[in-house]
Amino acid sequence: MRNFKIEKPNDGMRPAIQDKIDNLNKPKGSLGVLEELAMQVCLVQQTLTPSLAHPCHLLLGGDHGIEREEVSVSPREVTWQQMINFTKGGGGVNMFCRQHGFKLRIVDVGVDYDLSQVPGIIDRKIARGTKNFLYEPAMSEEEFDKAIEIGASLVDDCIADGCKVLCIGEMGISNTSPSSIWMSLFCDIPLDECIGAGAGLDTPGIRHKKEVLSQAVANSKLSTLNSPLSILRYFGGFEMITAVGAMLRAAEQHLIVLIDGFIMTACALAACRLYPDAQDYMIFGHSGDESGHRRMLDAMHAKPLLSLGLRLGEGTGALCAFPIVDSAVRMINEMNNFDNGNITKYF
Amino acid sequence: MRNFKIEKPNDGMRPAIQDKIDNLNKPKGSLGVLEELAMQVCLVQQTLTPSLAHPCHLLLGGDHGIEREEVSVSPREVTWQQMINFTKGGGGVNMFCRQHGFKLRIVDVGVDYDLSQVPGIIDRKIARGTKNFLYEPAMSEEEFDKAIEIGASLVDDCIADGCKVLCIGEMGISNTSPSSIWMSLFCDIPLDECIGAGAGLDTPGIRHKKEVLSQAVANSKLSTLNSPLSILRYFGGFEMITAVGAMLRAAEQHLIVLIDGFIMTACALAACRLYPDAQDYMIFGHSGDESGHRRMLDAMHAKPLLSLGLRLGEGTGALCAFPIVDSAVRMINEMNNFDNGNITKYF
Repeated sequence: MRNFKIEKPNDGMRPAIQDKIDNLNKPKGSLGVLEELAMQVCLVQQTLTPSLAHPCHLLLGGDHGIEREEVSVSPREVTWQQMINFTKGGGGVNMFCRQHGFKLRIVDVGVDYDLSQVPGIIDRKIARGTKNFLYEPAMSEEEFDKAIEIGASLVDDCIADGCKVLCIGEMGISNTSPSSIWMSLFCDIPLDECIGAGAGLDTPGIRHKKEVLSQAVANSKLSTLNSPLSILRYFGGFEMITAVGAMLRAAEQHLIVLIDGFIMTACALAACRLYPDAQDYMIFGHSGDESGHRRMLDAMHAKPLLSLGLRLGEGTGALCAFPIVDSAVRMINEMNNFDNGNITKYF
Repeated sequence: MRNFKIEKPNDGMRPAIQDKIDNLNKPKGSLGVLEELAMQVCLVQQTLTPSLAHPCHLLLGGDHGIEREEVSVSPREVTWQQMINFTKGGGGVNMFCRQHGFKLRIVDVGVDYDLSQVPGIIDRKIARGTKNFLYEPAMSEEEFDKAIEIGASLVDDCIADGCKVLCIGEMGISNTSPSSIWMSLFCDIPLDECIGAGAGLDTPGIRHKKEVLSQAVANSKLSTLNSPLSILRYFGGFEMITAVGAMLRAAEQHLIVLIDGFIMTACALAACRLYPDAQDYMIFGHSGDESGHRRMLDAMHAKPLLSLGLRLGEGTGALCAFPIVDSAVRMINEMNNFDNGNITKYF
């Protein structure tokens, strides 16, 4: 995997930014989280007049070998069906992208179906799904590196559009399974506590999922997985590794990245295990219902903006939170200060 | 006060609406609170294809006699200064209205300053501030009725614009004080537990506010305040009573009303004490930091959409939540269903 040059945003501007926020015509601190977001975006962009121009959404699709073990409520074919559906504008992600003005890129990095002739789907297929990590690593080192590179190059395409804020979503039946394993291994939380209902498993289904994933971790000869990279490669999906590559490139290029639900939070966690400073570029959109999501966020000291019980994936939890970040940027750009507003300064 | 004809939305369409929501191409229930919001808006509008067309925001300004007792951190003059500032587009409320396409009506119903010549302020002044309820009722019966009528007529103006969703905000230094008293009396919660820092009081300031408000309630000879109406009139502000009138007229006319923070929640509580079914038309935008706000929401069994530490007022907490309601409406209007999406139906 390539080296990314990721550094914490320079903190030198912090006092000037805080001064600008405190002098807007409102009681100090009265816009709460919006003020914290404005600070973060200003620091990332190193400016007092931040911008969220040309927002882009990457919708990454891939299938998972572990799906063969019946760990999810939906069948594998839903991945490609939904990918095609997204090209027609009728998915949840389309609705949010239209609402908030995001340019949507639908990218096949590993769907188990030939989508190469479907208009509107960018073909970056690495393979038709990962291998089944119950028995073997999900992907080779070459495939892993390729996924990272695809993620980075997709971000470069967005930057060429003028993009300042990136959202990433996924479509991949069974991808809560690798996410739970990553969470368990990276946060040192027992695997059982990291496994939930996914898109709607019942109690016996959850029990079966726990058994399969425990066996997979046992079979993996964990002791030989002695680095974050090897854990990522052994269990990850192509869409997930591509997301990690995109997050790292975005941080390297000082873009704001909005983080979605359980699966994208697992990717953010993985990215930050590789490059801890990447987290300064992330805004966490939504805390979902998936068992363990809140604990994973807590482990990252991440404070999600929303908690609306969304569990659709596709990046919808991140997109749903975008207007709040937009409000924060408008606050610091558009509100008058006490001087030009001719207002008696509040305390 | 006039009689409002407020009824629960007819529940007959509920199964058809639920069927439409459940057949959108997503796992059942996976858009969480958005699905609940879509149901509410559809029931209020009695349609399967709801609309949030022509959103309007009423920004109501008024001063309070109780301000003379130094119960707030900001001086009375901030009310009129901010009202003028709003006409220039530089306030928090302006920023949110621009972002979400709300038509803003800035209305003087009781500011202690002559604003009649200020372009952009609608002059509905009842008096230059209320009387000091430490010693006497804040307003007369005639003034109370006038405020209710102004609120109702403002809503009629919005409806004439085609408005389907209304936001209400306030500007009135010291108006957390009457709000705390309403909350205490309507929810039967000790007054001390309903009083917080307002826009930023320190500990001695809060202690003083508690003493003043306790004395005011004692002086009011509460035993003679034997109806919700008399409690509203004795302690309320003109902007608050106008808001109550607007909420009731909006419910009567089947508009969705977005409820803001502590003060507007107190007005919503008051409106629902007069007409309990009015609550079916309300969506609660934000749970703020003001001590007691969460308890007041709990007393109403209201679930706010956001909790972002906002305490600016002006309706900003409600406006900030609008895109979520918009997402819910777009969901039911724009997402494909399983048939036209050609997707294997999830469980």
